[in-house]
Amino acid sequence: MSEITAKPVYNRVALIGLGLIASSMFWAIKRAGLAGEVTGYARSAETRDTARRIGLCDRVCDTASAAVEGADLVVLCVPVGAMGGVAAEIAPALMPGATVSDVGSVKRHVIEDVAPHIPEGVHFVPSHPLAGTEHSGPESGFAELFDNRWCLLVPVDGSAPEAVARLRALWEGMGAHVDEMDADHHDLVLAVTSHTPHLIAYTMVGVADDLRRVTDSEVIKYSAAGFRDFTRIAASDPTMWRDVFLTNKDATLEILGRFTEELFALQRAIRTGDGQHLHDYFTRTRSIRRGIIEAGQDTAAPDFGRGAKK
Amino acid sequence: MSEITAKPVYNRVALIGLGLIASSMFWAIKRAGLAGEVTGYARSAETRDTARRIGLCDRVCDTASAAVEGADLVVLCVPVGAMGGVAAEIAPALMPGATVSDVGSVKRHVIEDVAPHIPEGVHFVPSHPLAGTEHSGPESGFAELFDNRWCLLVPVDGSAPEAVARLRALWEGMGAHVDEMDADHHDLVLAVTSHTPHLIAYTMVGVADDLRRVTDSEVIKYSAAGFRDFTRIAASDPTMWRDVFLTNKDATLEILGRFTEELFALQRAIRTGDGQHLHDYFTRTRSIRRGIIEAGQDTAAPDFGRGAKK
Repeated sequence: MSEITAKPVYNRVALIGLGLIASSMFWAIKRAGLAGEVTGYARSAETRDTARRIGLCDRVCDTASAAVEGADLVVLCVPVGAMGGVAAEIAPALMPGATVSDVGSVKRHVIEDVAPHIPEGVHFVPSHPLAGTEHSGPESGFAELFDNRWCLLVPVDGSAPEAVARLRALWEGMGAHVDEMDADHHDLVLAVTSHTPHLIAYTMVGVADDLRRVTDSEVIKYSAAGFRDFTRIAASDPTMWRDVFLTNKDATLEILGRFTEELFALQRAIRTGDGQHLHDYFTRTRSIRRGIIEAGQDTAAPDFGRGAKK
Repeated sequence: MSEITAKPVYNRVALIGLGLIASSMFWAIKRAGLAGEVTGYARSAETRDTARRIGLCDRVCDTASAAVEGADLVVLCVPVGAMGGVAAEIAPALMPGATVSDVGSVKRHVIEDVAPHIPEGVHFVPSHPLAGTEHSGPESGFAELFDNRWCLLVPVDGSAPEAVARLRALWEGMGAHVDEMDADHHDLVLAVTSHTPHLIAYTMVGVADDLRRVTDSEVIKYSAAGFRDFTRIAASDPTMWRDVFLTNKDATLEILGRFTEELFALQRAIRTGDGQHLHDYFTRTRSIRRGIIEAGQDTAAPDFGRGAKK
């Protein structure tokens, strides 16, 4: 995926917020030698202590302003709802010519919250790496998280092409493929591929938890039959996902409406015993899976690499 | 998981239907030396040819009756809707003292369809291994499919304890953990852990496919963000799943009703901006995931064994 680059892409990268994405970025940047120095800041003293203990970031700072000082790239890695506040806090400390980016799962809302705080002479290039696990916190990161995954850059009016190109080089150096799209389209695509699936998974896991007639231990013991994948999705960071749904409200509600409509049609087919409708629907969805495997975004190995998991 | 047993559990096992489960059973039986001979039958001549070519079963027969002749265990591995017809077909050829089992995902309906055909002096012990992949057909099986997975035995009135114990020994020899429960409870538990999650995954993938504003290639390219897990579930065999929903109608519709109720409550929280409701819900579902990892039904490895998948 990656190679050691002779010359760092940035002199100093500041990571604000030290969760799964930021910690993976640090290890991926180090793996490929993409920055001269990486500074880090987290609001919680406990997180900063953990980061210092495990060697996460070359230098962990006690304020966001100290972390961004002299940085030519600042990446906001906090929940979407906290982006605006952090941007206001660091604005006075930003170096002229620096680039500010973020890794939020929603782009229109982040741009509206962050852009007004960006000083003249500083570039703003929002981004969103489509990678994650259900784990969170400074110890959850690993250098391979972005390998062969997509990172979407969402340039705003006035994003300088050279600032976009440099950020692209960083993400490619961390192993990702990079695409550009506009904020509204991003938010709709993500409502389909990520936000609505997460809400549905959270719902299904909640239903299972509620059912008194099916004990918890049974649901857990027998989870291998499909439910297990939902629990992994539904174990993602609650604060991050609360913010996603509150800030990508319109697109999520639109896709949810479509989902409910289709679900009711299938439910009706079950009730009326319309096997042909069910069979046709299930045959159609199967072909999408083939496309994903051909696109290299998952494995077709019959055992899912299960042997290696044990 | 398994060990070579000195003495086979059965002299001859007949597998009727040669898809994912039957082919995995064959390889698992061979791995541990659990049967003297394994015969096989599939309705399609093409499947029988494939089985002969890849060495699936010691002997592939051209009729179901020929396959079950002299077998002390017959396992029906056909879609749930086809079980009754197959049982009627093989009944005259069953050996006295033999055990008939099945691997269907629904138990009440299979029992009602199959039990009337079981001759006097033949045991009937329904079973359901909770294991699978999205692949189907004779070439999709592998010996490790059942390792560390649960197999549920659902004895009916008159299932002899020694026949149940012998079938349990076979499944344990194939690497599975074995539990027993009654048919109605099985069908409700599976509606929660498998059937409803599958229907929801099928629905979500269908919605993504329908959306003209989000092109297919985008949905596929950016699938890593949650949707990918749904596509895997929604790629399962259409005939098998049509039959599951038609034959476990009541429990599936009940759980679907609960699901829709919860989904509407979360949808309302998004619409009204009730972040506390969302955060509380997402925090609760996260704990279920921990239970599954503690129960040994999935891995907590931060990279999901991704390194091994590439």
